[in-house]
Formats: sequence, C-alpha cells, structure tokens
Amino acid sequence: MKANSELETLIELMAKLPGLGPRSARRAVLHLVRRRAQQMAPLASAMARVAETTRECLNCGNIATSERCAICMSEKRANGELCVVEDVADLWAMERAGVFKGRYHVLGGTLSALDAVGPEELRIPALAERVAEEQIREVILALNATVEGQTTAHYVADQLEGRVTVTSLAQGVPIGGELDYLDDGTIGAALRSRKSL
Amino acid sequence: MKANSELETLIELMAKLPGLGPRSARRAVLHLVRRRAQQMAPLASAMARVAETTRECLNCGNIATSERCAICMSEKRANGELCVVEDVADLWAMERAGVFKGRYHVLGGTLSALDAVGPEELRIPALAERVAEEQIREVILALNATVEGQTTAHYVADQLEGRVTVTSLAQGVPIGGELDYLDDGTIGAALRSRKSL
Repeated sequence: MKANSELETLIELMAKLPGLGPRSARRAVLHLVRRRAQQMAPLASAMARVAETTRECLNCGNIATSERCAICMSEKRANGELCVVEDVADLWAMERAGVFKGRYHVLGGTLSALDAVGPEELRIPALAERVAEEQIREVILALNATVEGQTTAHYVADQLEGRVTVTSLAQGVPIGGELDYLDDGTIGAALRSRKSL
Repeated sequence: MKANSELETLIELMAKLPGLGPRSARRAVLHLVRRRAQQMAPLASAMARVAETTRECLNCGNIATSERCAICMSEKRANGELCVVEDVADLWAMERAGVFKGRYHVLGGTLSALDAVGPEELRIPALAERVAEEQIREVILALNATVEGQTTAHYVADQLEGRVTVTSLAQGVPIGGELDYLDDGTIGAALRSRKSL
C-alpha cells in the first residue's frame, strides 16, 4: 500500500488517537473506506466543523463554541454552587449523571511536583476570582479519588479556606458494588463515613 | 454537553468505528479537541481527501485512486501469479509481508449460504476472466484458514480446475509458535504436511 500515500497518512493520524494502534487504525480506516459516502464523508466534515468552531470557555475551561460555554451562559445554572473537576471528561461525566445544577470549573489537570505542574499551570488562581465575582456559596471538589486528585483537592481547599464552603464528593461503596470485590481503602472510607439509618 | 450538538454528532460518528464504543469515542474526541490545530484539522482533511479520492479498483477490488489500483497498473507485478484474498485488509497483510510480487484479486468476502452470499456476490466470475486475459500461470489462494475461507477456496479451485495451476498457502506451525499453545488442528495440519530435512 506504499503507493497510496493519502491512505497511509490517514492511518498514521488515526493511530495517534487514544485507544487505537496501527492495527486497529488500519481496520477503522478500511471500515470507513468501504462506507465512503454514508460514514467517512460525514465524519470528516463533522470533525472539520468541530475543529473550526470549538474553543475553551474563558470562564470555566469547558469546551465551548463562543467565549463562554453554554453552562456559563445559562442563568439557570447560577445557583451559587461551583463544581471543580480535573478535566472536561469529568465535567461530561457529572453532566451525564444529571444531578448537579450549578456551574463548573475545569482545573485542566492535577498538581504534580514531578511534572512541574504548579497552581499557575492549572486554573486555580481563576477559581478564587470566580468565587468572589459569581457569588459562589459552595465549592464542590469533584476530583478523582487518586493521590494526585486528592493532593490537588487539599491545596484548593486551603486556598479557599474562610472564603466559601468547600465540600467534596463522598467516598464509599459504589452503587451495585460488592464488598468482596472492593479494595481495602474504599471499605475503610465507607466505614469511617458510615451513616445512621 | 447536550448544548454542543456538533460535538455530540462527532462522538456518535466516531463511536461507529470498529474498536471504539461511546466511551472511547468520547475520549478520542476530547483528545482531538485538545489538539485542534496539530491533530484534529489534519485528520479531518486527510479523511475528507481519502473519502473523495479513493474508489474500488475495477480490476482487482483493491482500494485505488483511479480506475485501476497501483498494483494493477504496475507492469512489474504482471508476473503471471495472482493471489486471491478475502478482503483488502488481507491484501495489506500480504503486502506488509513483502514476499509476493504478483497481482491480487480481492473476493470481497466468503461464500455463505446463511447470509445468502453466492459466487455472484463475490468477485468470483471476474476471477475466471482475469485468468484468461492476464495470462495467469498460477492462482494462489490466500484465504483465511476458517471454515468459510476454506469452503470458498474449494469452490474457487473447482471453478478454475484444468485452466490454471491453483495453490494455497501452507498450513503449519507459525514462526515463533510453541507446540504447547497450538490447537490440535494446526498440529495435525503441520504433521500431515511435514517436510524432509
């Protein structure tokens, strides 16, 4: 297939996507080539449109089509609650759950001494500004329950201390979870946070 | 994310690719959105170009940019050998191995009574024509070693009987293969086709 360099280029670009390697990229491209009109052309134009129109919301870091994302522009979501997440994927996960009605603040990662990621590299200074400007009553830290996520959560909580109520997602047994398959840390956290019935 | 329908459309289209589901499609799209200029725009335009320029080679069924693919157009590959494969992915696998110097004939599938795939649905009638027209000396059946592949191989061999030499890929122990991990069928085939040293 050396002769068809456009196809080779496409396969190389596809292979860079997370979850795809050279072999699965070839398979995906072949799948698309067989469905040129129905699938490949629409995908190409959808991708071009998104590449052209999307940008980062200047306020919260979410993906937006204008200076501010739909959530930041909606007055309904200005309920005084601000949910802090690591990245846009976490924001999407919260939105899918459909239980949070306030606004978000996307940090863009976690603090990491090893990778030289300090508060200035994340959207932490902007967070303090938003708390004052948007009359936030409660900041909910929805950071991953990893060491990096929890370190970042503690730092953010320290920064906001005395200025606003800071809470974080509860840790415990996931819905549908079986104790037998849970790790010790989760069982310990669930026991410490036990509730009276 | 309901608000950003272009993003939703892109995720839906990506999720239709083999090897990707809704979750990994979201992850891939997010990855692309973060690299709009460097990765997403080039991928979109490469895809649009391939969707526009590629077609099926009228002669062999390979992917081509004109009526005939690069292999069919190359005089060097007209060495009297014709390799019959199920689909383009198999052609690519043969080309990667780099050991076959003749031309190909892509059947486009295997015979299947259940799915109502008969010889006319595949590129089998065209194969007989090519054997006569292109002065083929040997037809090499490189069909998958599955029940469907071997059924198709027998049918094709019957059709070409007496008109050309028909061979098929050898079956045996794969290079680097350990007997302990091989299935009984492969060991049986390797023993039957044993060679004197």
